[in-house]
Amino acid sequence: MSHEMYRSCIDACNSCATACYHCATACLTEDDVAKMEDCIRTDLDCAQICQLAAAAMARGSQYAKQICKLCAEICRKCGEICKQHEHSHCQECAEACMKCAEECEKMSA
Amino acid sequence: MSHEMYRSCIDACNSCATACYHCATACLTEDDVAKMEDCIRTDLDCAQICQLAAAAMARGSQYAKQICKLCAEICRKCGEICKQHEHSHCQECAEACMKCAEECEKMSA
Amino acid sequence: MSHEMYRSCIDACNSCATACYHCATACLTEDDVAKMEDCIRTDLDCAQICQLAAAAMARGSQYAKQICKLCAEICRKCGEICKQHEHSHCQECAEACMKCAEECEKMSA
Amino acid sequence: MSHEMYRSCIDACNSCATACYHCATACLTEDDVAKMEDCIRTDLDCAQICQLAAAAMARGSQYAKQICKLCAEICRKCGEICKQHEHSHCQECAEACMKCAEECEKMSA
Repeated sequence: MSHEMYRSCIDACNSCATACYHCATACLTEDDVAKMEDCIRTDLDCAQICQLAAAAMARGSQYAKQICKLCAEICRKCGEICKQHEHSHCQECAEACMKCAEECEKMSA
Repeated sequence: MSHEMYRSCIDACNSCATACYHCATACLTEDDVAKMEDCIRTDLDCAQICQLAAAAMARGSQYAKQICKLCAEICRKCGEICKQHEHSHCQECAEACMKCAEECEKMSA
Repeated sequence: MSHEMYRSCIDACNSCATACYHCATACLTEDDVAKMEDCIRTDLDCAQICQLAAAAMARGSQYAKQICKLCAEICRKCGEICKQHEHSHCQECAEACMKCAEECEKMSA
Repeated sequence: MSHEMYRSCIDACNSCATACYHCATACLTEDDVAKMEDCIRTDLDCAQICQLAAAAMARGSQYAKQICKLCAEICRKCGEICKQHEHSHCQECAEACMKCAEECEKMSA
């Protein structure tokens, strides 16, 4: 029952994708948008691999571990970048990224 | 705060995508796999538009309502097809689809 | 042979997704990035529904027409927004969007 | 100009995604569908990471190489599985997978 076994990791990936997509577009309305380039770019990387990872786990893919390993790396980087910005969407995103990184690391161990 | 406003609809879309992806691959191992063609095809339609709808809502897209309207239609159809099969993954999927259809209908009203 | 029948529309969707994803991130490095919010947001909407439409056509989905109809609307809007900006990535994107809108309109007629 | 630099790899990823999505649903109508489980499952893995890789290259993502490295591995496996089946959609898919594996290996070298 792949989707049950992976439940907490799928949930973390979905929450992270939501936080990253929200952060990416919220950054576009900030006064310092020019400084947010890295944040927006990494948000999109992170959101898209999180959605792929969630799909792969739900399908019980034999590549779920390898996808989650790469997902963890991207989540960790995205969390570090977001953490440096004071905007509440960046702080919330950093938290979702770090939680997802942990779940994906555990899952791919 | 698009992602907060849409929270319950995003959650329903993610749960539905997970259930549909799981159902699609679980169907492949059933004895009556030849009879599951419709179910598998619609599962994939449903899973993919649910992931798009979740992304669009998280991004605060101006097209979120239109995407959710189409998503609701596909969810309802997928739920009807899954409901006809006794496999537990089909029954669980039907329930997730119907809940998601309702959320997407409410959201796009 | 769904993927053959839809070949030119699938190609237009893929080219449009590439142009939109490129335009979205290229906009982030422009001096007038604050003015590019609409362009970036619509680029992401357009890229994501184009990738869904390409997948749906390749799968021979019964919802391919409805997805392409919505895709055409989003492409047309994205093309209009991009056309207003002089950046070469915006002009190239506008062209890809308009071509894709036409293909999707034809396909969903 | 990320999308130009990566053009041939993006094209190969898109062609492979199309071939895999088509093969997955075409397999469902074959007489020996029960024997096609592996093929269908790997087709879906391959199609989805190919679409992610195309998006990442178009966005000029710093993770494009790592995603393409994993994509190459999945393409190669999918090509090997498809090659064993005589159905024309499997043979065409095998060819698209092998070409994409080569492009992704070159790109991520």
